[in-house]
Amino acid sequence: MRLPKSVRATIEQFEKLPGIGPKSAQRLAFYLLHNPETELEHFAQVLIDLKRNTKVCSKCHSVGESDPCEICADLSRDPSIICVVEQPLDVLAVERSEKYQGLYHVLHGAISPLNNIGPDQLFLRDLLKRLDGVKEIILATNPTMEGEATALYIQRMVSDVFPDLVLTRIGHGLPIGADIEYADGVTIRRAMEGRRAMT
Amino acid sequence: MRLPKSVRATIEQFEKLPGIGPKSAQRLAFYLLHNPETELEHFAQVLIDLKRNTKVCSKCHSVGESDPCEICADLSRDPSIICVVEQPLDVLAVERSEKYQGLYHVLHGAISPLNNIGPDQLFLRDLLKRLDGVKEIILATNPTMEGEATALYIQRMVSDVFPDLVLTRIGHGLPIGADIEYADGVTIRRAMEGRRAMT
Repeated sequence: MRLPKSVRATIEQFEKLPGIGPKSAQRLAFYLLHNPETELEHFAQVLIDLKRNTKVCSKCHSVGESDPCEICADLSRDPSIICVVEQPLDVLAVERSEKYQGLYHVLHGAISPLNNIGPDQLFLRDLLKRLDGVKEIILATNPTMEGEATALYIQRMVSDVFPDLVLTRIGHGLPIGADIEYADGVTIRRAMEGRRAMT
Repeated sequence: MRLPKSVRATIEQFEKLPGIGPKSAQRLAFYLLHNPETELEHFAQVLIDLKRNTKVCSKCHSVGESDPCEICADLSRDPSIICVVEQPLDVLAVERSEKYQGLYHVLHGAISPLNNIGPDQLFLRDLLKRLDGVKEIILATNPTMEGEATALYIQRMVSDVFPDLVLTRIGHGLPIGADIEYADGVTIRRAMEGRRAMT
């Protein structure tokens, strides 16, 4: 006995999503089967609308409802600082800090030769076009191998053309609420390097 | 800054699915945003077709492309044995054993007072209508509190009306490939109770 074709098609779609294996995909498909048809039609409509009603900002490449996005269009923000992040979700994370008042630049990924993602697959060169009048670039790519490589690449690319621009890397160390006992060596090393005088 | 409405709607849909938390839902929505629009439309169509092209068998309540389902319609199978399972996926699991030649009865759940699932929310009474000529019922509900309660309920319900019918519970014990060292006490106890003479 095989599963009905439409159930298999649903399982296939879920399997394509990151972090969802064959077992979870099966469970999700059967879960949806227990939902009323109108619910499924609503889910379908939401998926169709997702890309149609979402715009990628032509300036910072963040995702929003308008182009330019809310942040790029906000004249109260400081255009002389650009925070470079990997993903649109990272913009939300930095915004949650309620500390940053500059603009963003979303790369939509990080350099990863293993996954065939080079500088040209990212919104990297676009950054150079935005740098007139910019005083500081904060590199807030992830503290992973790919994120570090991307930060280094941007550092070289930018300092060649704009030698006076200040490039900073977002601080690394122990997250608030963490337990030193369980921190890994690299995090402790970064936390030591990034220690600050108490005031 | 808030997420675009259509992105939030997508996150909401994914959050409703079992085993997907707010963080995963966010990641999935942004992953889909990177897919071409045609891919999303295909996903949407698959969801719409899911219920439309799937039929619940009026005899065994399993899920298939036809009614009666492939198994109920198969005259080579033994109609005097019925294996009672909780979910359509359980039918596939038992079929994988390539050992069972009888029919099935899918309850679509198990009795769970905490979740307001009583006998009337399941395809339990329908079972009684199918029992003429049946010699054995194998209760293959899950070895959980809910599954055990359901098995007990069926035992009482059936033996009242069909006192001669044989009711069996699927064997419990150590799964093949498991390590006794890591087995929990209840499993070991069941494995001891279910020990068999070596031949």
